[in-house]
This record gives sequence, C-alpha cells and structure tokens, in this order.
Amino acid sequence: MRIALDAMGTDRAPEPEVAGALEALRDFEPDVEVVLVGDEATIRAELAKHGDPPERLVIQHAPDRVTAADPPASVIRKKPDSSVVVGLKLQQAGEADAFVSAGSTGAVMATSLFTLRPLPGVDRPAVGTLLPTVGEPCLLIDSGANVDCKPNHLIQFAHLGSTYVRDTLGRANPSVALLNIGEEPGKGSELVAETYDLLVAEPGINFVGNVEGRDIIGGGYDVVVCDGFVGNVLLKFYESVATLIVSRLRKGLDPAKADGDLEFVFRVLDYSETGGAPLLGVGGVSIICHGESTPSAIKNALVVAAQAVRTDMVKHSARDVQGVEVSS
Amino acid sequence: MRIALDAMGTDRAPEPEVAGALEALRDFEPDVEVVLVGDEATIRAELAKHGDPPERLVIQHAPDRVTAADPPASVIRKKPDSSVVVGLKLQQAGEADAFVSAGSTGAVMATSLFTLRPLPGVDRPAVGTLLPTVGEPCLLIDSGANVDCKPNHLIQFAHLGSTYVRDTLGRANPSVALLNIGEEPGKGSELVAETYDLLVAEPGINFVGNVEGRDIIGGGYDVVVCDGFVGNVLLKFYESVATLIVSRLRKGLDPAKADGDLEFVFRVLDYSETGGAPLLGVGGVSIICHGESTPSAIKNALVVAAQAVRTDMVKHSARDVQGVEVSS
Repeated sequence: MRIALDAMGTDRAPEPEVAGALEALRDFEPDVEVVLVGDEATIRAELAKHGDPPERLVIQHAPDRVTAADPPASVIRKKPDSSVVVGLKLQQAGEADAFVSAGSTGAVMATSLFTLRPLPGVDRPAVGTLLPTVGEPCLLIDSGANVDCKPNHLIQFAHLGSTYVRDTLGRANPSVALLNIGEEPGKGSELVAETYDLLVAEPGINFVGNVEGRDIIGGGYDVVVCDGFVGNVLLKFYESVATLIVSRLRKGLDPAKADGDLEFVFRVLDYSETGGAPLLGVGGVSIICHGESTPSAIKNALVVAAQAVRTDMVKHSARDVQGVEVSS
Repeated sequence: MRIALDAMGTDRAPEPEVAGALEALRDFEPDVEVVLVGDEATIRAELAKHGDPPERLVIQHAPDRVTAADPPASVIRKKPDSSVVVGLKLQQAGEADAFVSAGSTGAVMATSLFTLRPLPGVDRPAVGTLLPTVGEPCLLIDSGANVDCKPNHLIQFAHLGSTYVRDTLGRANPSVALLNIGEEPGKGSELVAETYDLLVAEPGINFVGNVEGRDIIGGGYDVVVCDGFVGNVLLKFYESVATLIVSRLRKGLDPAKADGDLEFVFRVLDYSETGGAPLLGVGGVSIICHGESTPSAIKNALVVAAQAVRTDMVKHSARDVQGVEVSS
C-alpha cells in the first residue's frame, strides 16, 4: 500500500508533514509506503534533520505549490505541477492508494473530484468531519462541500458516513441521526422533514431520528447528517470556540492546576489531533487536514487513510450507496 | 409602564420569577410596574417569603399553566386561562406594555403572533438571541422561529435586529453581518448569495458583509443574520457546549484557581445572565427566557423589556422595516 502525502500543505510545511510521515512509518505494517509529494530539495533538507530516511519513505518531486489565492477549480489546469495535483494523479494512475493533504481545502476537494471522480450513485461527494464529544467522536457529514442539498443527497451522506465510520473506526451498525431543530418527526425545514421520511424507509441505515444542536456534544451518535451549509457553520463555530477556550486556558495554566476537569475540557474541545476530514463518495481515498496540523495530526490522518485502504472503504461505499435514487 | 411577567414559566416557578421581579423593581424608575401573571395563591405564598411586597408589584390571577406537552399553536384556544395567554392578552388590551416569559418557547411565540400580530411589512417575526463573544454580545437573528426563509425575510431580520440593538443596547449604527460559509460575495447557498446582494443595496442597514461560523465568537458584529434553522442549530449547540464546559470547570474549581483566564472563559461561555430573547417584528414587546432562568436572568429580561418600551422599539421597528418588499 502507498499513501501519497502532500508535503507542502501545512502553514509550516514541510516540517509537520515530514515528522508526521516518519512517526506513522514507525507504527505502520511493513507493507505501507509513504510518498512525500513536493519540492524534492526542500523535502530532502527537512528529512536530513531526522537522520537516515526509512526505505518506505519515497519522494515524488512536485515543484509547484497551491496557495489560498488559487481558485480551487482551476488548480488542476493551472498548477499541474503542484503537490496537490501530482499527489492525486498518483492515485488516479494507480501508483498510490490514498492521498492526504493539509493544503487548501477547496483545491483538494475540487482536484479530488476531477481525478478520483464521484462513485456511481453519488451525486455529491461530501466532507465528513469527526467532532469530539463527551463520548466517542461523531462524524458530521456534510461539513462543507455542498450548500444546497436535496433529500436524496442527505440519504447518500448517511450511507457514506456509515460506511466510513464502520470501516475506519470499526463501529458495527453505526447510528445515524439527522440534524434538526426539534426531536419529533415532521420538525424542521422542508429539506430535513422530507429527509426524515426517506431515512426511516432507507435500507442499510441505522437511523435513530432527529438530533438537535444541543445533543451533539453529549455523544451517542456515530453519524450526524446535515447539509454542507449548516455543517460548515457549526464546525467552524465549534473550532473557533474550542480554540479560544483551549488556548486561553492552556496559556494561563499552572501545570499543577491541570486536574481532571480541565483535562476533560481539553479532551472535548481539542480536535487538533483528530487527523483530517475525508472527502467521501469519490473513487479513492482523499483526506483533508487543517492547515495548522501538528505532526501527530498528520500521522493520524495517514493512519486513517491506511485503515480506509485496508478495509476497502471505497468499494464498500460504492456498494452501500447503490440503490439510492438520484435526485433530479 | 407596566410589564407583565409570566410567574409560572421557569422550571422552578414561581421562585425565580418573584425574586427577579423584586430585584428589578428595586432598580426600576418609579413609573414601572410589574404584573405577576399566574396562580394567585401560589404567587402570594412565594411573595410572603420576601416580606411586604412593593406597591408596584401587581398580581394578575391566571389559574392554568402551559406545559411542554401543549401544542404551541393550540394554547391560545385550549388554555385561555394560562399565564402565557392571560399575560399576552393584557398587552393586547393595552393593560401592559410588555410581556416576559420563561415558559414554552413555542407557546410564547405562537401566542405572541396571535395576540400582538406581525407588524405591517413583516412577513415573519423572528427571535433574536444575544450571543456572548470576546467583545460585546451580538444578536443572532433568526435563532429559531422560521426554518424556510426567502431573501427578503432575512432583510427584514436585518432591520429588526438593527432596531433592537440600537434601542435596547444603545449601539448607534449597528453593524450587520450575514452568516455564511465564506467571506467573499457570491459564496454560500442560493438563499444567502441572493440575500447578500439585497443587503448591499438595502437603505438603513450598515451591512458589513459575510461572517463565517468561526468569526462570531471573536466579536465585532452587532447583528448576525441567518435563517432560523441554522440559527437554532448554532445556538443550541453553543449553549450545550457552554453549559458542559462551565459546569464542569465550576464543579472542579478551587476558588483560588479562578484566575483571569477562567473568568474570561466563564464570561464568554456563560449566557445564563443575558436576559431573554425577544420575538421581533410583532406589535408589542415579547421576551422569551430560558426555562432554567435565575432571578438575575429574569431581572435582566425585565430591564430589557422596560428599555424596549422606553425607547419605542416597536414603533421604530415598524418604521425601519417599511419599504422592504414582501416576498411572494
């Protein structure tokens, strides 16, 4: 198995990428290789700081780099030598099995769509993001790829999220909840009211009903389904609150004060280690990390990518989403 | 001025209501009366614990009580003797100038619409909720009354929010931002992309552009406009995170540890004192409080209600919303 890692994605690239790749390789089974994609000289210089690179670390030269200023949809044409395009084309050509990047979310999404293509039966690939909770993390899908959705898109998200959680987190029969503004059936916007009825009838989905904004943090749901507008607003709001609180409390923290309650708060709020958000519903594995990812976050994303490949997540997604009628 | 206060609204009614009313009357100008609406014997028993009631505290007997099980829209017909219906009818009859309740949000909203009626030019009255931020609180409107909105509804929310913030918080020329998933014009769903263009052209609105979920908590916006679905999900999510974090940290807190940073966190997260969410766009003042409101929260809601009456907020709303074309 080969995982392509965009070495030029984070704000401090390639340092976290190189360190994260080395960490991951120490833990990986011997059949996993990591391909660092980016400017070769820059990567070599960073690697040199860590002593002899392991054999299972390969470099794929890609001299160009995507910036936040590049319109996402044009990257594949205008920056063919960028680490994002070169890395994803490796997977398209069958020379890699997965792609991980902390670069521009929009560029990674758009280029993944162009190269890996939506799976048959998937109208709208969607981003799933693991949200920390008091219990196990839950997957919020869609967390930003699709703003105007139809009920059948949300049904597809429910399938894609279930398959992902089952395969990469090993949760059998994942529970799926629909994000809404009330618990009763029939509540909410036209979109979610219609989606509710479809989810109840949909085979292969362990639908447990509506979930309100207030119920997420308490845990207990494996997958929470919503359109990408609501999901993105919620996710970004949460990240900003979490960052504010954690940074403020960490800053002023006397280590002696780091008792159980503060540790609890940090655990619930600190999503920085969760390891990337997959673009689900495409014909490959594409994981998008934060621009400020630490080496551990990069490592975790690589571990998730390997798990998705190992479990045939893409094949299972294609199988599970079959039969969902495509919206007009 | 007379403010009707639902004495049977909170989970521990009428204790917080009575204590909050007494606190408010100590601070109010001598021309303000509070009418406690609810079961007279129950209210008198509670009042007796506080010594002689002030003259400016009046009791309006209402033997019945709205519960969470009552369908909101039927309360006005089926529970005419409830504190919610009696209290709002006082205002409808001109015997009170404002209504404050910590009872069922849905029942207060529906009964307010029936009794106070939407203002001319307002299709959809909306709930505004003050969200604490690092800076000044911002008003999130709509935070739950209307799930499927059209662009002109959001324009009306922008006016209603601006007028409320100007009159009750004394902020001149309030800034209005549109909740979106990107900063650039043209971003987001059809609804917000169209609303953006209308807001740019709308007279009387100090529109400052899109705001992302991550930008709210940092402060700097007086009014954040969104549809009631997104607003409600966001608000309930925030409340649950805030409650979880604050309760957990307070529980484990050695007072000696309550340094500046923890105090900061409590201030940003603890919305319990903010004093109620107004239903805006109706022909009167109706303020909805949390079911778990403390006496201070009730007092603050009464203060806001008095301020809204004092500043002629309703008249100004009717004036400011004029000219917004009504959506078909």
